Amino acid sequence: MTIDLSVIGKELQPLEYTYTARDTIFYALGIGAGAEPDELKFVYENELQALPTFGVIPPFPALLGLAAVEGVDINLAMLLHGEQYLEVQKQPIPVEGKLISKPKISAIYDKGKNALIELDSVTVNEKNEAIFFNRFGVVIRGEGGFGGEKGPNAGNEPPDREPDKLVEMKTLPQQALLYRLSGDYNPLHADPYFAAMAGFDRPILHGLCSFGFAGRAVLQEYAGNDPSVFKSIKVRFSRPVFPGDTIVTEMWKESDEKIIFRCKTLERGEFCLTNSAVWLNV
Amino acid sequence: MTIDLSVIGKELQPLEYTYTARDTIFYALGIGAGAEPDELKFVYENELQALPTFGVIPPFPALLGLAAVEGVDINLAMLLHGEQYLEVQKQPIPVEGKLISKPKISAIYDKGKNALIELDSVTVNEKNEAIFFNRFGVVIRGEGGFGGEKGPNAGNEPPDREPDKLVEMKTLPQQALLYRLSGDYNPLHADPYFAAMAGFDRPILHGLCSFGFAGRAVLQEYAGNDPSVFKSIKVRFSRPVFPGDTIVTEMWKESDEKIIFRCKTLERGEFCLTNSAVWLNV
Repeated sequence: MTIDLSVIGKELQPLEYTYTARDTIFYALGIGAGAEPDELKFVYENELQALPTFGVIPPFPALLGLAAVEGVDINLAMLLHGEQYLEVQKQPIPVEGKLISKPKISAIYDKGKNALIELDSVTVNEKNEAIFFNRFGVVIRGEGGFGGEKGPNAGNEPPDREPDKLVEMKTLPQQALLYRLSGDYNPLHADPYFAAMAGFDRPILHGLCSFGFAGRAVLQEYAGNDPSVFKSIKVRFSRPVFPGDTIVTEMWKESDEKIIFRCKTLERGEFCLTNSAVWLNV
Repeated sequence: MTIDLSVIGKELQPLEYTYTARDTIFYALGIGAGAEPDELKFVYENELQALPTFGVIPPFPALLGLAAVEGVDINLAMLLHGEQYLEVQKQPIPVEGKLISKPKISAIYDKGKNALIELDSVTVNEKNEAIFFNRFGVVIRGEGGFGGEKGPNAGNEPPDREPDKLVEMKTLPQQALLYRLSGDYNPLHADPYFAAMAGFDRPILHGLCSFGFAGRAVLQEYAGNDPSVFKSIKVRFSRPVFPGDTIVTEMWKESDEKIIFRCKTLERGEFCLTNSAVWLNV
């Protein structure tokens, strides 16, 4: 075991993220927005609005910074993005400007074979107002079994009935190439050589790209495409999606505030996002 | 007539264009690259190469600057991009850096009903080495008939035989939204309201986006996707393309140095690029 539990509470280097309306649009195109007419406001600078799931972008580099923390002596190749929680804390989301994210290690769980590190990040604007809260759930393969706490269950199991709504969205063959320009340049998502080293036939889509597709599906079906209604989202990454796959988002209205969902690929029927939910401002 | 022929030779404000590898990749995605495995080098920062047609991007704003030139008192709404010639003057094309374009009005022709203004631009690097030469052929509707010279014919007529090669490339529904982030933010290509004002049912694709698709088709078929083989390209914009259309590029090998081509939309069979050619370095 090479994770020192005393790193819990440790703060990582703050991350500065400066962006323009063009970057906000890039992100939206990266998660497939713009194919539907009602999404013009997410991909066009006139009356531009940011998609809520954009909130994962500013603190994202913290995930890679994790391996550099003293006391977290892990092999980056063993790191998997396991879960993601995002809460939008101030509306409307700025479409340009400078944001600062302050990541820290909030918990380390023993999941048996693997360890789960939770990395929390508050993202603030230049007035120090909180805009986003993120919790990255980072799985470190092979680092479990150290006798630590198991942590809470994922929850958000779908109820025992057919989905209330279902949306199919086809990803582009170039989806990962497009998405990566929003800041996750891991070659796993572009380079067949790196994909092969990781055991995949070809580059896979970013988990947070599928997350963005799912967010759009719920936003469309339950929030009238109004980002201000979207409060928070939680997902678990279960299986890879390949660029070009169709993501099917199955949704259940649990209450006025809560939509449970899961996603599968139409092509293989494998669930890629599970134990997932969106909470709405009502 | 509101074009003063004495503006011929007039230099426009030099244009500075600073770009990163991310911009080079964004351009490539904007013209559809990345769907084919052999195009990874155009969309991935590792051993990145710029697509030759990128050369139109740095001087592009000159087209809009034209209406601001004293003596060129034209209505921007009457301006159409009619023709484009691009020559790559130094290989390899830099994938990032700072370029300066120096546009000037080189000719004004009387095409009967319309006027054609030719705007030449040399784009240089910081060592003042010429990288690109562009000639923008700008049609000013309703401004012809002033008794001026007619100018040369477009040339590059296809020979009287079936195409030697033919490539179909489907554009994305979001193609124009993607392409515009490379610098042509004309709302005609994004906003249904502006498209309707210009007489279109919906936003149309940028002519220079179709131009980029055609350039990729010839590069693939006759230059082994090696940008250093690509010397120059000339096109005439004949009909609009809509995002989502399939562009069919028909090619004829005229000589080792010259490939004549034209493009049509698979959906309507209308020719969108005509009198077109690529010249190769052999």
